[in-house]
Amino acid sequence: MVGEIRTIWWEKNHVVIIDQRLLPHKLRYLKIRSYREMARAIKEMAIRGAPAIGVAAAMGLALAVVNAKTGSRELLMKRLREAAETIRSTRPTAVNLFWAIDRILSVAGEAQSKDDLREKVVNEALKIAEEDIEVNKKIGENGSRLINDGDKILTHCNAGALATVGYGTALGVIRTAHNQGKNILVYASETRPRLQGARLTTWELIREGIPVKLITDNMASFLMQRGEITKVIVGADRIIAKTGHVVNKIGTLTHAISAKYYNIPFIVAAPFSSIDFKHSVDEVVIEERNIREVLYIDNVRIAPKGVEAINPAFDITPPELVSYIVTEKGVYKPEELKELAH
Amino acid sequence: MVGEIRTIWWEKNHVVIIDQRLLPHKLRYLKIRSYREMARAIKEMAIRGAPAIGVAAAMGLALAVVNAKTGSRELLMKRLREAAETIRSTRPTAVNLFWAIDRILSVAGEAQSKDDLREKVVNEALKIAEEDIEVNKKIGENGSRLINDGDKILTHCNAGALATVGYGTALGVIRTAHNQGKNILVYASETRPRLQGARLTTWELIREGIPVKLITDNMASFLMQRGEITKVIVGADRIIAKTGHVVNKIGTLTHAISAKYYNIPFIVAAPFSSIDFKHSVDEVVIEERNIREVLYIDNVRIAPKGVEAINPAFDITPPELVSYIVTEKGVYKPEELKELAH
Repeated sequence: MVGEIRTIWWEKNHVVIIDQRLLPHKLRYLKIRSYREMARAIKEMAIRGAPAIGVAAAMGLALAVVNAKTGSRELLMKRLREAAETIRSTRPTAVNLFWAIDRILSVAGEAQSKDDLREKVVNEALKIAEEDIEVNKKIGENGSRLINDGDKILTHCNAGALATVGYGTALGVIRTAHNQGKNILVYASETRPRLQGARLTTWELIREGIPVKLITDNMASFLMQRGEITKVIVGADRIIAKTGHVVNKIGTLTHAISAKYYNIPFIVAAPFSSIDFKHSVDEVVIEERNIREVLYIDNVRIAPKGVEAINPAFDITPPELVSYIVTEKGVYKPEELKELAH
Repeated sequence: MVGEIRTIWWEKNHVVIIDQRLLPHKLRYLKIRSYREMARAIKEMAIRGAPAIGVAAAMGLALAVVNAKTGSRELLMKRLREAAETIRSTRPTAVNLFWAIDRILSVAGEAQSKDDLREKVVNEALKIAEEDIEVNKKIGENGSRLINDGDKILTHCNAGALATVGYGTALGVIRTAHNQGKNILVYASETRPRLQGARLTTWELIREGIPVKLITDNMASFLMQRGEITKVIVGADRIIAKTGHVVNKIGTLTHAISAKYYNIPFIVAAPFSSIDFKHSVDEVVIEERNIREVLYIDNVRIAPKGVEAINPAFDITPPELVSYIVTEKGVYKPEELKELAH
């Protein structure tokens, strides 16, 4: 048995993350010493996954206040706000990033002194990280009730330990069900263009002995047609409380439409911090990434010179395609979320 | 303006094909000198596309009789049948392969002498090749009536000049509409695992100045949701006349389900020789290719050691998802095919 995967942690005055760009071939850790390094790590997807980048943002802000050598409480607060702006601009879609930044800024605002501010920010960042694992285990418990012995489960992208501090959301549900002794086969769709399914999800599951088969994204409906997929579980980068729309990795919508066509339950697993109670679906910015990610795989070019391409990183699944939303607080239908507004 | 693409042709005692494994980076021709070399070229997908492999099979048989130095008419016929068995076993799904082999064997059966057999087989192979281009142009004419100025058309895999002797089926429709002055934008889905969309379709269209954008397979529904795709056109490896099921490259079914969900016409363009009047859908063998195609892209491995995978090369789209089937003889609804049995 191997140790549990921990994606990100705080060490005295620096942060350590798994460099996910090198997986599954190399498990390397990256030392992050400043909020600017953290912003780059988020932008370049050394760390990715909505809950993980929330924690990374919080720890990035903690680095900003720890590194700020001098000045008053006011100057430190100014520095923190600058760092928050930099980190906020890295990736526009996952709401956890903004949620974590707001939470840090809020505790910082209550600080009485420079030292108090430092302490409060660092403690809050650590708290957000620790909560994440607990939340995921709760999601696992709640979601595992929807999983039956013998289920063959499609998952997309990586909503696993690597997308969180540890344990995972969609893969947390699968882990819990597996640990309960349920016999489960996972189909991991590779998730072009960045291949998080092929690179990360299979790596995580093989490591723990959970049966997994890799497929290309376009094979999912073939398997559904043959009765080879009985459930779909994915994570979420943002869930719109008002309407129940689910923003998640590009390709999620396609799986949801196919699942609907074949009458297969489509389950979303995410922490409450992924629920956006403020915005409507029209206000969601879908990140457009460099088309190089589509034109190349690693450094192999797969398309002719001069070709145009698009590269939206996320898509939006409407509530009528979503069977359940599993959070640490309970399992909801998408239309029930609007009643939960706090 | 560049010359028209010709995928395969006969030269005195050998055949020349474009080696499609090297596209889009290199346009190289491969000399095929024996039926065994042709069988390998088909199996390894140096030449691919249902109509093209039909022609390749016929020319492979022509090589078999041209190369057979001695013997009686009976010995030559025996040799031809052996060659037919070898070529028949290369790829199980596309029906054109079997159709072309049967057509060659049928004319060979009528031959009066050894020399007559040689001549008849070679002539029939050349005839199949020449017919292919004419058929495609007819498909283009018939199909272009379904295309409007301003259409944004999704196509999957490559059903272009490279999938035929020249001109193409699905891309033949697009070529004709483009030549008629209709303003068309093509979205080419990359078509994992072999990437025929990224490698071949974009190459063909860029070469002729037809606007094209490359997407990953899982981006199609995102575009449909936003109204950015107004038609889907694909080729076919086999169409089941009895029921109207369409067997085509893996990923076709997914696009068809998404198109249905967003109420977008789903059009199949194929020669009459792709229609299977003999078998039912349950009798179709879906080729399972080496999982290396999923685990590697070129020589870059994208998944961890020891991972399991599947690699079905085709899927089956049910008739309720198909709007039109365009052939050289006319445009049909899938349920109309059974009335065409000859």
